[in-house]
Amino acid sequence: MEKTMEKIVALAKNRGFVYAGSEIYGGLSNTWDYGNLGVELKNNVKKAWWKKFIQENPYNVGVDCAILMNPQTWVASGHLGGFSDPLMDCKECHERFRADKVIEDYALENGITLESSVDGWSNEEMEKFIEDNNIPCPTCGKHSFTSIRQFNLMFKTFQGVTEDAKNTVYLRPETAQGIFVNFKNVQRTSRKKVPFGIGQIGKSFRNEITPGNFIFRTREFEQMELEFFCKPGTQTEWFNYWRSFCYEWLKGLGIKEENLRLRDHDPEELSFYSDHTTDIEYAFPFTDWGELWGIASRTDYDLTQHQNTSGEPMDYFDDETNEKYIPYVVEPSLGADRVTLAFLCEAYDEENIGTEEKPDMRTVLHFHPAIAPVKVGVLPLSKKLNEGAEKVFAELSKYYNCEFDDRGNIGKRYRRQDEIGTPFCVTYDFDSEEDGAVTVRDRDTMEQERVKIEDLKAYFEKKFEF
Amino acid sequence: MEKTMEKIVALAKNRGFVYAGSEIYGGLSNTWDYGNLGVELKNNVKKAWWKKFIQENPYNVGVDCAILMNPQTWVASGHLGGFSDPLMDCKECHERFRADKVIEDYALENGITLESSVDGWSNEEMEKFIEDNNIPCPTCGKHSFTSIRQFNLMFKTFQGVTEDAKNTVYLRPETAQGIFVNFKNVQRTSRKKVPFGIGQIGKSFRNEITPGNFIFRTREFEQMELEFFCKPGTQTEWFNYWRSFCYEWLKGLGIKEENLRLRDHDPEELSFYSDHTTDIEYAFPFTDWGELWGIASRTDYDLTQHQNTSGEPMDYFDDETNEKYIPYVVEPSLGADRVTLAFLCEAYDEENIGTEEKPDMRTVLHFHPAIAPVKVGVLPLSKKLNEGAEKVFAELSKYYNCEFDDRGNIGKRYRRQDEIGTPFCVTYDFDSEEDGAVTVRDRDTMEQERVKIEDLKAYFEKKFEF
Repeated sequence: MEKTMEKIVALAKNRGFVYAGSEIYGGLSNTWDYGNLGVELKNNVKKAWWKKFIQENPYNVGVDCAILMNPQTWVASGHLGGFSDPLMDCKECHERFRADKVIEDYALENGITLESSVDGWSNEEMEKFIEDNNIPCPTCGKHSFTSIRQFNLMFKTFQGVTEDAKNTVYLRPETAQGIFVNFKNVQRTSRKKVPFGIGQIGKSFRNEITPGNFIFRTREFEQMELEFFCKPGTQTEWFNYWRSFCYEWLKGLGIKEENLRLRDHDPEELSFYSDHTTDIEYAFPFTDWGELWGIASRTDYDLTQHQNTSGEPMDYFDDETNEKYIPYVVEPSLGADRVTLAFLCEAYDEENIGTEEKPDMRTVLHFHPAIAPVKVGVLPLSKKLNEGAEKVFAELSKYYNCEFDDRGNIGKRYRRQDEIGTPFCVTYDFDSEEDGAVTVRDRDTMEQERVKIEDLKAYFEKKFEF
Repeated sequence: MEKTMEKIVALAKNRGFVYAGSEIYGGLSNTWDYGNLGVELKNNVKKAWWKKFIQENPYNVGVDCAILMNPQTWVASGHLGGFSDPLMDCKECHERFRADKVIEDYALENGITLESSVDGWSNEEMEKFIEDNNIPCPTCGKHSFTSIRQFNLMFKTFQGVTEDAKNTVYLRPETAQGIFVNFKNVQRTSRKKVPFGIGQIGKSFRNEITPGNFIFRTREFEQMELEFFCKPGTQTEWFNYWRSFCYEWLKGLGIKEENLRLRDHDPEELSFYSDHTTDIEYAFPFTDWGELWGIASRTDYDLTQHQNTSGEPMDYFDDETNEKYIPYVVEPSLGADRVTLAFLCEAYDEENIGTEEKPDMRTVLHFHPAIAPVKVGVLPLSKKLNEGAEKVFAELSKYYNCEFDDRGNIGKRYRRQDEIGTPFCVTYDFDSEEDGAVTVRDRDTMEQERVKIEDLKAYFEKKFEF
């Protein structure tokens, strides 16, 4: 079975996971809307993150900060000065390119080893390299680029009536800064002692020049970020703790190890303020390995930047050692849309549930029950049984998102639930009226067992544990 | 006890419900960040809405659409043409005003009955009224306003590199339109038949000239909207259904009837496309009655507008009656931040739990357990008992957001949990090691009972039902 993006995108669209945004108006480049199943899937992913990173974790608490922040935030974080892509146009065909990508691709294709990451080059260095190597336009092959200019990736808007610099604000490019500016507030109100973490789930925006690959990279996206504050000197220990915690979270929700890779950054790849960074990568169908989760030990860079820019102290008084210090930060940063895509890709399967001679193919999404958009399909064997089945549906719906389906033969209904990843179907049949029990069918094993209606809640609770 | 905004805002700030946004940079006008308790409270409010409006409701499904939409959406919805405030400046003191508000306030103060709602007046009509009545500047008292201009309330930004009209997009001013443009998609993928509804929770943005009253009116806010599609002719029935459903939802979460008012719009107050509209109002401390929930029967206005603008058919084929029609819409629209504020106001209380002679005051938030940010406080009677208490905490944290507190005497710890609205405290004492039981204290009655540790989950499950 070949797992392709075409198949996954088609299923996502046809079954209500993800539609193209503003579709009736021809879309809006690279925006996506989550449909009736997609919203449940993504909400479950967010809940599973919150459960393990915030609710159950004794160290961490959450926050939910505004998307619009005082622009000084982006001075401190460096986004206003440095969060930009180097752009150039081909003067012949008028295509626009990221100069760093053109150079990297050219070097890769021609076996040239670059002395350092292009990320760190100045515009002049990039222009010189392009000229020295006579790099052609990737589209038309001509040799005539404009000079390179830096394009800031923050979306800009105006708060208030006049569209001037005084009223310019930005859509946050990451949720992390909302946490840093509130470090003292949260420490005070939660009464947490270092080490502790603050997590946040929310939308961020980046005016990417080349978004793409479905919901892998979008201009509007949702992040799940944790900033974990620890004592200087303990950051390596905590970095390893969170690195492995994140990896286990993915495995716990059904991602196979063979599809995951931990890629530690080499010293020359590290940001200047970071002493450890690891990307957890996933084997997305459209690439060899795509970045899924960035875990970075960021030292005291962020809090120090905010202290310097705001003049507000960001230090912490450790009452056990009577020391004052600016805590070090370990940041695991995950895209909710991107990891939702990973779960979709991981779950997708086509299986022959017939024999070799007489194949019978089904498409099935093997979601972990905790993230499956529909937990239980409730199916009356006949429409005559709707009344009893509806009672089962109403009872189970108090606890889980369920679907009621009385259309088509039972085999077709099972297949439909398989295709949307429903882990269990409950079939209410003519015996149910007598014995107060139903048949529960397991999506993966396709085995069936008889369960008393009154025991269903406890039965599923165990199955859905995460 | 006087319930004032000052007290509620102070508690919110001091206990980690809501901080001023970007506080270390002097804030950003009227943005707010939810702290470690606020995020839990607001998430619980959103979950309670989703549970009753989507998960348990057999008619409805959810979606989660992008904030950035194709601008044609706002042509169709009328926001690009008509979603604006009439602004004028005082030429003397340079204060800026909404002309309609100035007129309304003046009429109210001077006992003048306006023939029609100022909402519908043209700029010229407003200017004439101000001149005829010689209305003074509310700030400096002079009589010299600029002419009135319409200011569109949508936040504008640019997607892509150039800041021109072609790249202009808007932050959505409401979530509803994401539902309307996806009406056909969701109907197809959910296989729902009319009547059915589509709900959504998400951020919206309005560049209000006069936001205010804490999180009551903010430029960035979160909505919980349902668009319910029904057959023309049945809309009054469904309007009444949802009107009462919303009211019951509020009561079910602990809002007292005396603090709620259903205000039906008079015919002259109705939008031209609406045949019924009711505002559910709440007795916020800063006003007599503030709008909380707008429930509007919007006929086929929205779908027809999108059909006309996009050229895509928005009709529905009713296979029971073999009719084609554009469904009518009933829309209950609620602000998540605003209703969170209502729950905070409703919950706030100061009680004398001593005697008249020897008063002993406590501040308490009487949250319904379903929305309380912390469900259970776990308190070891002595630090020597931390190990056993931590086990109880770890077990309960699998199901509920709990707080572990071992600091200060037990009475103080109870008061602290009262003040953040924790419905139950579990005290682990020296007997617990022997009898495997703990003392459970009820926030409201302050009564205590002994419960086996192994029974706690079932015990609380019943208490937290919603």
